[in-house]
Amino acid sequence: MPISQIAVGGREEATHPDALKAALAEFLSTLIFVFAGQGSGMAFNKLTNDGSTTPAGLVAASLAHAFGLFVAVSVGANISGGHVNPAVTFGAFIGGNITLLRGILYWIAQLLGSTVACLLLRFATGGLATGTFGLSSGVGVWNAVVLEIVMTFGLVYTVYATAIDPKRGTVGTIAPIAIGFIVGANILAGGAFDGASMNPAVSFGPALVSWDWTNHWIYWVGPLIGGGIAGLIYEFIFISQTHEPVPSSDF
Amino acid sequence: MPISQIAVGGREEATHPDALKAALAEFLSTLIFVFAGQGSGMAFNKLTNDGSTTPAGLVAASLAHAFGLFVAVSVGANISGGHVNPAVTFGAFIGGNITLLRGILYWIAQLLGSTVACLLLRFATGGLATGTFGLSSGVGVWNAVVLEIVMTFGLVYTVYATAIDPKRGTVGTIAPIAIGFIVGANILAGGAFDGASMNPAVSFGPALVSWDWTNHWIYWVGPLIGGGIAGLIYEFIFISQTHEPVPSSDF
Amino acid sequence: MPISQIAVGGREEATHPDALKAALAEFLSTLIFVFAGQGSGMAFNKLTNDGSTTPAGLVAASLAHAFGLFVAVSVGANISGGHVNPAVTFGAFIGGNITLLRGILYWIAQLLGSTVACLLLRFATGGLATGTFGLSSGVGVWNAVVLEIVMTFGLVYTVYATAIDPKRGTVGTIAPIAIGFIVGANILAGGAFDGASMNPAVSFGPALVSWDWTNHWIYWVGPLIGGGIAGLIYEFIFISQTHEPVPSSDF
Amino acid sequence: MPISQIAVGGREEATHPDALKAALAEFLSTLIFVFAGQGSGMAFNKLTNDGSTTPAGLVAASLAHAFGLFVAVSVGANISGGHVNPAVTFGAFIGGNITLLRGILYWIAQLLGSTVACLLLRFATGGLATGTFGLSSGVGVWNAVVLEIVMTFGLVYTVYATAIDPKRGTVGTIAPIAIGFIVGANILAGGAFDGASMNPAVSFGPALVSWDWTNHWIYWVGPLIGGGIAGLIYEFIFISQTHEPVPSSDF
Repeated sequence: MPISQIAVGGREEATHPDALKAALAEFLSTLIFVFAGQGSGMAFNKLTNDGSTTPAGLVAASLAHAFGLFVAVSVGANISGGHVNPAVTFGAFIGGNITLLRGILYWIAQLLGSTVACLLLRFATGGLATGTFGLSSGVGVWNAVVLEIVMTFGLVYTVYATAIDPKRGTVGTIAPIAIGFIVGANILAGGAFDGASMNPAVSFGPALVSWDWTNHWIYWVGPLIGGGIAGLIYEFIFISQTHEPVPSSDF
Repeated sequence: MPISQIAVGGREEATHPDALKAALAEFLSTLIFVFAGQGSGMAFNKLTNDGSTTPAGLVAASLAHAFGLFVAVSVGANISGGHVNPAVTFGAFIGGNITLLRGILYWIAQLLGSTVACLLLRFATGGLATGTFGLSSGVGVWNAVVLEIVMTFGLVYTVYATAIDPKRGTVGTIAPIAIGFIVGANILAGGAFDGASMNPAVSFGPALVSWDWTNHWIYWVGPLIGGGIAGLIYEFIFISQTHEPVPSSDF
Repeated sequence: MPISQIAVGGREEATHPDALKAALAEFLSTLIFVFAGQGSGMAFNKLTNDGSTTPAGLVAASLAHAFGLFVAVSVGANISGGHVNPAVTFGAFIGGNITLLRGILYWIAQLLGSTVACLLLRFATGGLATGTFGLSSGVGVWNAVVLEIVMTFGLVYTVYATAIDPKRGTVGTIAPIAIGFIVGANILAGGAFDGASMNPAVSFGPALVSWDWTNHWIYWVGPLIGGGIAGLIYEFIFISQTHEPVPSSDF
Repeated sequence: MPISQIAVGGREEATHPDALKAALAEFLSTLIFVFAGQGSGMAFNKLTNDGSTTPAGLVAASLAHAFGLFVAVSVGANISGGHVNPAVTFGAFIGGNITLLRGILYWIAQLLGSTVACLLLRFATGGLATGTFGLSSGVGVWNAVVLEIVMTFGLVYTVYATAIDPKRGTVGTIAPIAIGFIVGANILAGGAFDGASMNPAVSFGPALVSWDWTNHWIYWVGPLIGGGIAGLIYEFIFISQTHEPVPSSDF
């Protein structure tokens, strides 16, 4: 994944054909991911007549997001770096691995991809509502913010360790699987408490289409803080000392 | 995966031993895939006395198809390219990555493989019916067509990005897993609405063996449109500009 | 996986230190695999008070066997080839990829590994019975034989295509996952009808420890026929023409 | 994974910047793993009002631990070796693949990571209790000790065969997946009997935060014995004879 190769560029970058292609790749990857992830929640509601979540439903949500994100990262990896997530783009920006302009392009593409996925889902299911993210009973907003911070830290730390770190070695081959599966693992933990978004785009599309913005800020503040901390820690503790020229050849 | 290497050839191609071997590989891969996927649906009906689908049943269907397709693509990858799906073959044809004659051979092999899998399942289960694909209440035919278009777009886009694109890099190593798992993810979303076929061969075998063709056209029209669009977009936007000779050597 | 490199050797082979190490590796791999797979069935019985299998139970059995076999093949791959299954060893023998003597050593090691796993499970669970394989209502012995033939054909075909074929390329890297997951997929289909063994060792241990041999022959005849056919087809149709010396170097 | 490269060093090693970075990586990996694994148990309790474990709950626990450990090993692999488990560190020490001082650093980091994960979970869930490990009815302490020995043997044997063995070849690429999934497989078997820890750090955090030490010693004695035996067997039977200088170049 050439994420670290896209940290160069300047003002003209955002209109460069490669930047536009990368944004298109982010749009399509996010669409594919949100279609599967959000669609699995709608399928659960369909099969259970809007019953409350069960362990089997949590497994279904976990697998849909893990498999979908794994694929979305894989298909975008060699075009855009496969961020599929504004918090990942922000973490890459904090660590100096993407420019501001390209990052903004990515954000727009990701938010659009999620929104189009929700509109397609609404049509394809004959008009069912897309579920929105919210808090379970007993979970306060600050609890949820911390939950999103910790889970998104794990996600962006995984992106850095397996996809950005020049010393990643053969772990890079399985990076998209690791990135997808940390989200699957965290949904099995956090899904019962705040929906386990870890991704502002994943929360934005359903909120826009359903026009329900209750507590929506949590799903921006938490992931951006968690992703930013991960970018700082990984870049400046684990990567920086290797900036003596390391042959990036591993394979 | 040498899919892109099979775009050459002419009229004599279809009777060339390699073309026949590739067709045999497609037949066997599709048989293995449909046996597991369709069999899991019959197992669900057996265990629940034909009860309606539940979240746990959807997880079982998703895993059977994800694991089965991953394996079917893996075992065919180096012989036929591991299409296992007329919509994938069509998407490869649209992008110029397989000839018409070889594509027709693949279609015949895939449809035969699915049919033989269903006949074997019927015998091995002591005569149980194979389930056919259909629409849930509230889902109209055009909703289902759009659903199949979007999901198959994701599948064929994944095939292009991870297996055909000469710039795929190390992502190519995990391509069969990505191809299997996007189907698993989409089943968790679309399975509750139209069965989530994404593959005309998967729908054809059960329809033939059960002689039930209700709405069968949906499972051809949707996947072929979705696969064709994916082939066009990927080939002409993401691949074409790299047709300056790229060393295909990565491995 | 150097399976194809162990086809040499003679009468002294069986007492060669490497052959004994390979047998030890088969013993340990089979023990690890059967412990997880058989143990998951005992856990289901524990949690449900010997309730009948449900879709969630089938998913648990599928994952335990898929994950366990994937690992068992991985850890044995570079020592013994990671057969973990008399039907795989038989299929490798039929195709000329292992000698008779080494094959017999492997069989003994595999049967011992399964038996020791069952004894350890019985002790560790405080004396619970290990479940044995049997037929569901409506499934006759010949149905089950065909079921085991088809499923084991898929398994051994996967072993050949991903681990033995000198042209396997990068698919070889993910071979252990494919081998494990075809078993997981087939259990989701066949598990509800005859237990979906595909492996005489997996059936032998529980039968010996429970001393229940009802229909036990099915789980030898089916897998050996299916594995033998796969070995013949793959070796003589897909591999044989490449016996012009191919550099086995891919990696 | 450069685990075998960290067996050198001396007294000054423990304060070397690389040793401290490796300990930080162990801390973060264990935090990520325990957060997902332990959190999934708390989610089950939330969704079922502290109902008793079901097959679907066991699947959720298995996947959360399998996915979480896979990721935790991946992200730590190139910094610390990705142990994430005092029993793995002990097994590596027994086989001579890590020094005593570095091993102690790792243990401290792992125990701290687990504890912080439990504290964060308690806050993020609005104060829910973290579950502790215990024995099911009918399972005695010695049964559980044997269960933990066998399961941890499988885990550490997998670490050796896929990550430490210089002859691991391409299996090394998928080592983190294998290490995560053997734990997932074993939870499907042992989870119903003693919780299936295989990892003293995983048991320590919840015990400390809940201050419940009943039978806690089992989850140290069993894993350390099992991990130690695996280290001895693998190092001295399968690795030692290759200590003629083997080119580590495999690929």
